[in-house]
Amino acid sequence: MAEHELDAMLITEPRNIRYLTGFTGSNAALLVHGRGEDRTVFCTDGRYVQQAGQEVGELTTVIERACAAALVRRAAAEPDEHGRTGFESRHVSVAEFDALTQQAEAIELRRTTGLAEQLRIVKDSAEVDTIRTACAAADRALTELLEHGEIRAGRTERQVARALENRMLDNGAAGPAFETIVATGANSAVPHHRPTDAELAVGDLVKLDFGARIDGYHSDMTRMLVIGSPADWQRELYQLVRTAQAAGSGAAVAGARTAAVDAAARDVIDGAGHGEEFVHGLGHGVGLDVHEAPRLAMEATGTLAAGMTVTVEPGVYLPGRGGVRIEDTLVVHEGGNEILTLSTKDLVTVS
Amino acid sequence: MAEHELDAMLITEPRNIRYLTGFTGSNAALLVHGRGEDRTVFCTDGRYVQQAGQEVGELTTVIERACAAALVRRAAAEPDEHGRTGFESRHVSVAEFDALTQQAEAIELRRTTGLAEQLRIVKDSAEVDTIRTACAAADRALTELLEHGEIRAGRTERQVARALENRMLDNGAAGPAFETIVATGANSAVPHHRPTDAELAVGDLVKLDFGARIDGYHSDMTRMLVIGSPADWQRELYQLVRTAQAAGSGAAVAGARTAAVDAAARDVIDGAGHGEEFVHGLGHGVGLDVHEAPRLAMEATGTLAAGMTVTVEPGVYLPGRGGVRIEDTLVVHEGGNEILTLSTKDLVTVS
Repeated sequence: MAEHELDAMLITEPRNIRYLTGFTGSNAALLVHGRGEDRTVFCTDGRYVQQAGQEVGELTTVIERACAAALVRRAAAEPDEHGRTGFESRHVSVAEFDALTQQAEAIELRRTTGLAEQLRIVKDSAEVDTIRTACAAADRALTELLEHGEIRAGRTERQVARALENRMLDNGAAGPAFETIVATGANSAVPHHRPTDAELAVGDLVKLDFGARIDGYHSDMTRMLVIGSPADWQRELYQLVRTAQAAGSGAAVAGARTAAVDAAARDVIDGAGHGEEFVHGLGHGVGLDVHEAPRLAMEATGTLAAGMTVTVEPGVYLPGRGGVRIEDTLVVHEGGNEILTLSTKDLVTVS
Repeated sequence: MAEHELDAMLITEPRNIRYLTGFTGSNAALLVHGRGEDRTVFCTDGRYVQQAGQEVGELTTVIERACAAALVRRAAAEPDEHGRTGFESRHVSVAEFDALTQQAEAIELRRTTGLAEQLRIVKDSAEVDTIRTACAAADRALTELLEHGEIRAGRTERQVARALENRMLDNGAAGPAFETIVATGANSAVPHHRPTDAELAVGDLVKLDFGARIDGYHSDMTRMLVIGSPADWQRELYQLVRTAQAAGSGAAVAGARTAAVDAAARDVIDGAGHGEEFVHGLGHGVGLDVHEAPRLAMEATGTLAAGMTVTVEPGVYLPGRGGVRIEDTLVVHEGGNEILTLSTKDLVTVS
């Protein structure tokens, strides 16, 4: 905040509030003061009085429905202490900003972007442990599904997705990290396919993209299966993406430029003539959001640092035929990284 | 749009895009032109090319990652056709707006609020049917849980929540409408409690707040149980909230002011001296969002119209002891309404 010449900072993004205070309710705002916690004020509404008492602890707490406006009004009443108050310009809508401006009186509301997110981008060891636990829940869910023959010809995408989610819950997840993707046959060529009543059939490539949420933190993993024996084109496509995934993963070390990590994987796919069919970035940060900073993509800027948790997930999609994506969540170290999603990346076949 | 003197309107809110186009992916924008569909342009990114083809149909489609900026740039290239282009000021962040302004050149970006939401607020019969189906899935889930003795002393909040969600899926839900609330004993006094490993115990009030999502539409219902025999205070509190809920429900007819519907229920609770413990509004619209317009609350403005689907959900919360909320989803008619959540509102007891 000193660097940005801010007296105070208004935080309204729920995950940022959770990160800074521990509060997990759905409506809150936080006015962080540059001169210490005793001047910092937290606001939530009447539904969360008890919860705030348990989760937020010692902060001065205001109870009001329009939390951000209440805190700006409070700041405006002490203009000497809040002359330059930052707000999260990516998370405050134009309409909300208009309303806050009406409360601001003599204080200036300054645009900021990504201040709290920059604090969140490098995980401490407790956060990495939580993400590791979430990854392990997803790994175990897949292992159990395969052991129990729950992925087989004749089951629907929806049934498999639900079985995966239930197994994750059995293994300690509070919920899925996002809506589980199960995509069979030609559906696997749709990068973000939603499960349907389509049945898995012999000869299908099956894409499973899923993760677990534990204590607010997420895991994210994609694995591929073939029902029956893989055709040559499926084996070749899989091998290409696997090689690209290994190249991207190998490049994800502290100090690497995020665009260079993307390029390490993309060059492999480009080299095989499939560049046009790799239609998304290589990966993204994973934490309190399942998609957060940093982005690994062609146009991304910035470098990786130790403690960042990111996905590496190249994919090649052949419309009408099928697609392959392979994705790990990993934590970046100096000179290397640790892969947190440990399910095999051999092409699994089931009958 | 003519009323607001707009040549075109930029839609960026995902549910609004779904409502207007049928598109269900996670990244899109829509530039609706006042002079017809053939001038209207849809944008999504490379992941959704196939899906857009299936869902959106005939609209001109642009493929780009930064969808809103791409459409504003396109509009700016034809300033005579897009001189006044509206945007959704409640859904566009200050940072996004700054970026759009850079593309706008000679065209004016005008703030609008709630234009698409106003179209969504009155449901047609197909939408009501979908919501009715979602309500029925939740009703059946609760019935089955009770029939199979899955709500009883010794089970945890989390187990009951998961059982409810699985039963909703068994009954056709694509997913829960929101994170199912199961709150037992003193936890029932926390309006938006999240399920824990706390066990249901004899003498507990148990609050179940849950709903199903089908084809993008939601249901929302709260029911109360007692494990064992209700204590006098539980019976009295329940009866009070039930009377208030019936009063609110009875007032929810076409032409009623939304604040008056809230007052009909709130007056009952105020009259019993518990007004301070009814810490939230009476209800909200239900549709593509589980919380949408209109709000039924003290400070709400506007009137109900036939075809609006709303919740009626008064609650009284006694911190440290327990709370009662009873909630239906209903569709407003001329001179009455139809309750869509049909589970009994008698106080259910289980052993």
